[in-house]
Amino acid sequence: MALWSGRFTGSPVDEMVAFSESLSVDLEMWREDLDGSRAHATMLAAVGLISAPERDALLRGLDLVEADLHSGEWRPGPEHEDIHMAVEARLTQHVGAVGGKLHTARSRNDQVATDTRLWLVRRLRALHDAVRALVVAFLDRVGSDGDVLMPGYTHLQRGQPILLGHHLLAYAWMFRRDAGRIEDAIARMDECPLGAGALAGTPHPIDRALTAQLLGFSRPVPNAMDATASRDHALEATAAAAIVSTHLSRWAEDLVIWSSEEFAFVRLGEGYATGSSIMPQKRNPDAAELLRGKAARVIGDHQTLLTLVKGLPMAYNRDLQEDRRALFDAIETTHACVRIATGVLQTLTVRADRFEAALAGSFVLATEMADWLAQRGVPFREAHHVAGRVVAWCEARGGDLSLVPDHAWSDFHPALTPDVRSWLSPREAADRRRSLGGTARVAIAAQVATLRAWADATPAHPPLSPAR
Amino acid sequence: MALWSGRFTGSPVDEMVAFSESLSVDLEMWREDLDGSRAHATMLAAVGLISAPERDALLRGLDLVEADLHSGEWRPGPEHEDIHMAVEARLTQHVGAVGGKLHTARSRNDQVATDTRLWLVRRLRALHDAVRALVVAFLDRVGSDGDVLMPGYTHLQRGQPILLGHHLLAYAWMFRRDAGRIEDAIARMDECPLGAGALAGTPHPIDRALTAQLLGFSRPVPNAMDATASRDHALEATAAAAIVSTHLSRWAEDLVIWSSEEFAFVRLGEGYATGSSIMPQKRNPDAAELLRGKAARVIGDHQTLLTLVKGLPMAYNRDLQEDRRALFDAIETTHACVRIATGVLQTLTVRADRFEAALAGSFVLATEMADWLAQRGVPFREAHHVAGRVVAWCEARGGDLSLVPDHAWSDFHPALTPDVRSWLSPREAADRRRSLGGTARVAIAAQVATLRAWADATPAHPPLSPAR
Amino acid sequence: MALWSGRFTGSPVDEMVAFSESLSVDLEMWREDLDGSRAHATMLAAVGLISAPERDALLRGLDLVEADLHSGEWRPGPEHEDIHMAVEARLTQHVGAVGGKLHTARSRNDQVATDTRLWLVRRLRALHDAVRALVVAFLDRVGSDGDVLMPGYTHLQRGQPILLGHHLLAYAWMFRRDAGRIEDAIARMDECPLGAGALAGTPHPIDRALTAQLLGFSRPVPNAMDATASRDHALEATAAAAIVSTHLSRWAEDLVIWSSEEFAFVRLGEGYATGSSIMPQKRNPDAAELLRGKAARVIGDHQTLLTLVKGLPMAYNRDLQEDRRALFDAIETTHACVRIATGVLQTLTVRADRFEAALAGSFVLATEMADWLAQRGVPFREAHHVAGRVVAWCEARGGDLSLVPDHAWSDFHPALTPDVRSWLSPREAADRRRSLGGTARVAIAAQVATLRAWADATPAHPPLSPAR
Amino acid sequence: MALWSGRFTGSPVDEMVAFSESLSVDLEMWREDLDGSRAHATMLAAVGLISAPERDALLRGLDLVEADLHSGEWRPGPEHEDIHMAVEARLTQHVGAVGGKLHTARSRNDQVATDTRLWLVRRLRALHDAVRALVVAFLDRVGSDGDVLMPGYTHLQRGQPILLGHHLLAYAWMFRRDAGRIEDAIARMDECPLGAGALAGTPHPIDRALTAQLLGFSRPVPNAMDATASRDHALEATAAAAIVSTHLSRWAEDLVIWSSEEFAFVRLGEGYATGSSIMPQKRNPDAAELLRGKAARVIGDHQTLLTLVKGLPMAYNRDLQEDRRALFDAIETTHACVRIATGVLQTLTVRADRFEAALAGSFVLATEMADWLAQRGVPFREAHHVAGRVVAWCEARGGDLSLVPDHAWSDFHPALTPDVRSWLSPREAADRRRSLGGTARVAIAAQVATLRAWADATPAHPPLSPAR
Repeated sequence: MALWSGRFTGSPVDEMVAFSESLSVDLEMWREDLDGSRAHATMLAAVGLISAPERDALLRGLDLVEADLHSGEWRPGPEHEDIHMAVEARLTQHVGAVGGKLHTARSRNDQVATDTRLWLVRRLRALHDAVRALVVAFLDRVGSDGDVLMPGYTHLQRGQPILLGHHLLAYAWMFRRDAGRIEDAIARMDECPLGAGALAGTPHPIDRALTAQLLGFSRPVPNAMDATASRDHALEATAAAAIVSTHLSRWAEDLVIWSSEEFAFVRLGEGYATGSSIMPQKRNPDAAELLRGKAARVIGDHQTLLTLVKGLPMAYNRDLQEDRRALFDAIETTHACVRIATGVLQTLTVRADRFEAALAGSFVLATEMADWLAQRGVPFREAHHVAGRVVAWCEARGGDLSLVPDHAWSDFHPALTPDVRSWLSPREAADRRRSLGGTARVAIAAQVATLRAWADATPAHPPLSPAR
Repeated sequence: MALWSGRFTGSPVDEMVAFSESLSVDLEMWREDLDGSRAHATMLAAVGLISAPERDALLRGLDLVEADLHSGEWRPGPEHEDIHMAVEARLTQHVGAVGGKLHTARSRNDQVATDTRLWLVRRLRALHDAVRALVVAFLDRVGSDGDVLMPGYTHLQRGQPILLGHHLLAYAWMFRRDAGRIEDAIARMDECPLGAGALAGTPHPIDRALTAQLLGFSRPVPNAMDATASRDHALEATAAAAIVSTHLSRWAEDLVIWSSEEFAFVRLGEGYATGSSIMPQKRNPDAAELLRGKAARVIGDHQTLLTLVKGLPMAYNRDLQEDRRALFDAIETTHACVRIATGVLQTLTVRADRFEAALAGSFVLATEMADWLAQRGVPFREAHHVAGRVVAWCEARGGDLSLVPDHAWSDFHPALTPDVRSWLSPREAADRRRSLGGTARVAIAAQVATLRAWADATPAHPPLSPAR
Repeated sequence: MALWSGRFTGSPVDEMVAFSESLSVDLEMWREDLDGSRAHATMLAAVGLISAPERDALLRGLDLVEADLHSGEWRPGPEHEDIHMAVEARLTQHVGAVGGKLHTARSRNDQVATDTRLWLVRRLRALHDAVRALVVAFLDRVGSDGDVLMPGYTHLQRGQPILLGHHLLAYAWMFRRDAGRIEDAIARMDECPLGAGALAGTPHPIDRALTAQLLGFSRPVPNAMDATASRDHALEATAAAAIVSTHLSRWAEDLVIWSSEEFAFVRLGEGYATGSSIMPQKRNPDAAELLRGKAARVIGDHQTLLTLVKGLPMAYNRDLQEDRRALFDAIETTHACVRIATGVLQTLTVRADRFEAALAGSFVLATEMADWLAQRGVPFREAHHVAGRVVAWCEARGGDLSLVPDHAWSDFHPALTPDVRSWLSPREAADRRRSLGGTARVAIAAQVATLRAWADATPAHPPLSPAR
Repeated sequence: MALWSGRFTGSPVDEMVAFSESLSVDLEMWREDLDGSRAHATMLAAVGLISAPERDALLRGLDLVEADLHSGEWRPGPEHEDIHMAVEARLTQHVGAVGGKLHTARSRNDQVATDTRLWLVRRLRALHDAVRALVVAFLDRVGSDGDVLMPGYTHLQRGQPILLGHHLLAYAWMFRRDAGRIEDAIARMDECPLGAGALAGTPHPIDRALTAQLLGFSRPVPNAMDATASRDHALEATAAAAIVSTHLSRWAEDLVIWSSEEFAFVRLGEGYATGSSIMPQKRNPDAAELLRGKAARVIGDHQTLLTLVKGLPMAYNRDLQEDRRALFDAIETTHACVRIATGVLQTLTVRADRFEAALAGSFVLATEMADWLAQRGVPFREAHHVAGRVVAWCEARGGDLSLVPDHAWSDFHPALTPDVRSWLSPREAADRRRSLGGTARVAIAAQVATLRAWADATPAHPPLSPAR
């Protein structure tokens, strides 16, 4: 019989029981539910609402429930409406009537809000660690392969010669900002809802600051209605996850294209690629494709939450039960993606020969030609046109800039002399771009130093541990 | 060892195995996978690619696998990459080497496409039946409570007197169109991908029309690349599901508001409402709130699929593996929502007294006053202004139109006489709206007849049955 | 002064006027607003609610307003709340007080519903024509370049030899289904809301069937509340547009990749590509990139509408004003995309030499080797492994299958003889895939015939014309 | 002729010109484009790339272009590809060939990135100011109406007595966090892309720190490819805007429901409500409905951006041109919504009599009864059941708790005595909830003090001013 059934004469129909259950999702946070109950019991005793022996009985009982859940000996079933009721019921089996005292000065609304937020803060810390490790993996790659010369692409067309390190650092910075977004989200949501009651607080003389502290939160949520009805922490967390996912998806898109036989710039480690059941020669960049695909899933989860919350009046509405499935999936999927991406990056084979071959026979140095003219006083727009005409001339003859005979340069522009050739070296072109953020080695080294310093100054979070 | 591993020297890392597995989702369609294999084996024998005894061995083996799965005695595990590999492996355990012949002239790409489409067509047929039953439930409600008089709302403000039947039929028509969308989606996707191979068809002399027929499809997909790479059937199906969900969400929004103590127009059956763990008096319209909430989930699933497919080049890409989680969830969630909505509707208590009380003391007849004047030759815009002034006059005195004394009517407009009172009856006002689609009883009866005829002419689909 | 201001003492504040205006968007459908008014006036006279001279005055006045709007001499301004009020005000300037009679038996709710639906049906018909023309362009390309041999890709890895025609037809079928979705959407929404009033119908003896017919609709919407409050036609139309857009985006992704110097399979017509302001050699596939980008926009518009409608109770709510911006943009953007795609396809340069070069030196014939073995009785799974080992052997030596010396074949499998070489021709491999939907020329010709017959049997819609 | 056309022989077709133009959207940021050019010219002179007279000529010319644009005398037209080209062309008309020098060491990729980011930082600062002002408006309302007693709702059912101030503060805290999210987003994106070139930096000895400083940015973007290709600042900004919008939508949902005649808790100021063209008595809460509707639009814009960015490889791709329409609309719509919400809040009529009437005759004190029993040693779960039975008893008799005769209390539970009545006062029940975040006046005062201190310590940003 449901705990709220005092006033009801009937029961939910079976189909409704299945429709409204949340256990299958909320089991994910049974540790958080137990930790919340421990902190609540400790606080209740601290302010005198229960006795020390009662507290001890409850804590012992909660340990027994944890052992049950950990061993799998006992599982909540459909007869329990939700994880909170299940734990309370099991607790009462273990400790008797005192189990009923645990619900003093709390409601399911603040309980589920606390469990979810605790789960989220813990998982976001782990996600932050994983993103930081990914940044480090990028820096390591810059160390090992950063000097490889390659064409930088825009519009998937070869643009200008760059170093692979420049490309890798572009992603390192994106993930660095992602780490910042996760930090900011954690800092903002680091407030404990427990003790908010259903929506109005409680008449009992509880100590919410103590509960918050016991659970590792920085402070209590300052308004009881806000504590139980708001979900912007879930929206912000999934927004951050969705942005991480788009970054991973972009990098994965690079990898899929670079893994094609036509580009053949990289080869995924065998641990991250698969073959085909029908085409024996295939070596598919599956991990990269899945990174792309799972980004869509995270974006959809984020969308679900925005749409869900948008339509609600104050305060708690049952619609909010649907928040966890999307929230849990978005955070856990993103975490798995970040870890897989790190593994892919660490085991990637970089084919410097192929990158450099892509520079040869191309026109990636056309900008250099224009710059060379500009430095000799030709207005940039005119210099650009001249270079374009040289390219067209070579292309029509089926070759690259090496086709132009000495005497012909000046036909394109009087200032254009054969000397320009010495200027047209990809490596020197790259190294000339010493402006802040440019692709020259010196500019890359400066970025690596900054990011490395950040990573070193950012220790990993301690492993998740129960609050006792 | 994976079946494609001939060319590989390493194995996927553990984390990648977890990241890339699809079994947990695809187990949902094990029946479809077996049915597909049965049809394929039968066809292979029909065209002579395997012998009749080989076919019989395969079919017997597939029956054994079905028994295994049905009884739960055997479950595919992490050592199997996907449901297809798992079934094939188990089949070979049962029937020996002949099991390897089943993969002749098919690939996993067309196999997963077939399983998914078969699952989808079957579930959409069941969803169609459920939507039809919901329409019938609305018609039944019109029969029992359609004559209840109520204020029709726009902007959640009382507008004009209508019959509850008018309101119910608005929803009946929405769901009628939803049924049409589902029918259209089924008709368009009713094509069998099996035999398309990886993307190019097969050199074996297979009979795709026969396979299609054995599986209950109307025809084969006419292009092998399209068959394995397209997912517009999933996009269309989830679009239809998302639209059903928005309709359910709107109706649920009505129910939540109508269940408030302030409106108190309806009361949800006890099977569909719950109490509060902390507030003993609560009777929360949970089923309606969950209908609203789950609509967000279906919309997010649909969004996932659009975002997923948008980014892909031809033909099959591994990203597509992510399509099933969203697809299955969208269709099954919508189905559950439609069934719950039907139960809610059938067990709803309608409080005619409260509906009628909401008419009294309101100004819902102000439009009538304007119409009355318009019929006496006053231009409608002027008539509207006059009625507005009468309303403002009464409101300032804290009452309704009954406050206006006989002599005062003409102060508002010379054409306005006390006779107008006899015109100002909510029931007659409703019954005057005899225009097609209006709220008059005669107009309602016509709609019911049309919808009833459609429902009667639309038999439920036969129960899902395996193709043998 | 607003027309509803009879009861109000204040006016909207300026910022609110800007916030709530819809004119800037609704001007898009001024033709539809005039057509609706013409039909309404004609119907009012037909049933005797206005006289023939009044009708004639109104129709003349509406012609004058059309001339005003067409010439741009008069533009609705911020003093008009919306397009309907603006037209009515201007009409009254032209024809005097009789202008006020036009609003008899209609409300802004059914008026805006009618305008929007009329706009939508007309634009969807035009979109359907454009999609059909795109299918024809694909068929024409199959005619001119369909025999070009190329590697078919899965996972962006070369898979099996196919004909370009096979690839083009995959898209032709997708767009064929898109045309079907648009047709179905039109057929379902082809109902006229006019005469529904605010939500309840009207007491006036109007003839809604006549109005519907005058506007080119097949029938009236059968329920007045549904007519003014539902927006599933907008959801369905944008879903269809979003699906078209994902198909275009996928094809555009192919084109962007194929335009890279590494693939160099195609070259966009100069009309559809652009250069770079800084890199003179660039030839960016802008049209394809924009097709990809605009798909995101259409998907976002669709999402806006789903989220918008999901949250609403019955019947009309002002939130619905926001539907047009997203709806108009989704349909018009999709239409522009379809037309641009057609132009891109018609002007594309196909480089058969590059496609064929991609076949040489690859392992796309590995499946053939497996099939060859399978046809000699080797179980497919074993044959697949053998072929994988051959590929690995060649790859380790840096070459393709031509590396294998005669004597070495049987080392891989006793059944493998040098005869296999004659089997390993890309063109013959493609032509062996004669199964329905396969890449063989005969299978392609059959598809072209089917699609051509459909296109021929589907005439373009007549140009949009006002209802008079 | 386009500036990149040196190598091209044809021109874009007309339809493509319309398809690919960005001017209509980018005109929104012409001030930012001019400011960027001013800073660039100043920096070029500072490092010696142009002379002081050239710089002065350019700055004078840019002032003339500003005057042109400000007065509307000159408007960029379709012959200009984009805002940057238009400004440069006009500049060259004013100052001659020196105009061509301005494009030294920059590309359109970094230029558009700079313009957009500058626009965004400026508008986010303004949005932050507006959100802060909204928080202050909530605090002011708490000051004027915070003591009004009302039922707190969960599930839209009356739950417990609270003060209106408690409800208002729940929103104040949400918007306080929204301000924090906007601050964090600004801080993270406060980096100048100018000087990044197309993707690789520039060989010219530019001073990016100076350019950044001149434009009011804190620092340059540290990687040139990241600077031109990333859009996470747009994703983060629209996520923050979407979250603001969901909060506004929730509050608007409260207002729409509270404005119904059934609730009648509040009345929107006449400046923010409208009437009906057909129902003279209507007073529709339009501003609130539009707040709800526009939230869907902002969510859709956010979705567009996520979907857009997800699919892209490195670095700049033309798809990114589509980012501004969604970005600008999301930020400006949210800003307008925040301002309108502030106006609605400041002009709202609160009907204390109606709020209090909703308390009478309800069972909002049932929790108090359970708490009363719990304080007398009855386990909470049992106390809750007892209270539920009392409610059921009263409800069956059609009344509230005042129905229970003195002698009957103990029938429900031995510990239940008539004394409980003195405990059952809504005001005292509210004031007993003194726990942190509770609805007691003392708890509300503490929150107001905290928020007021934040608002006072957060000055408004200075008005937008050009960088010179």
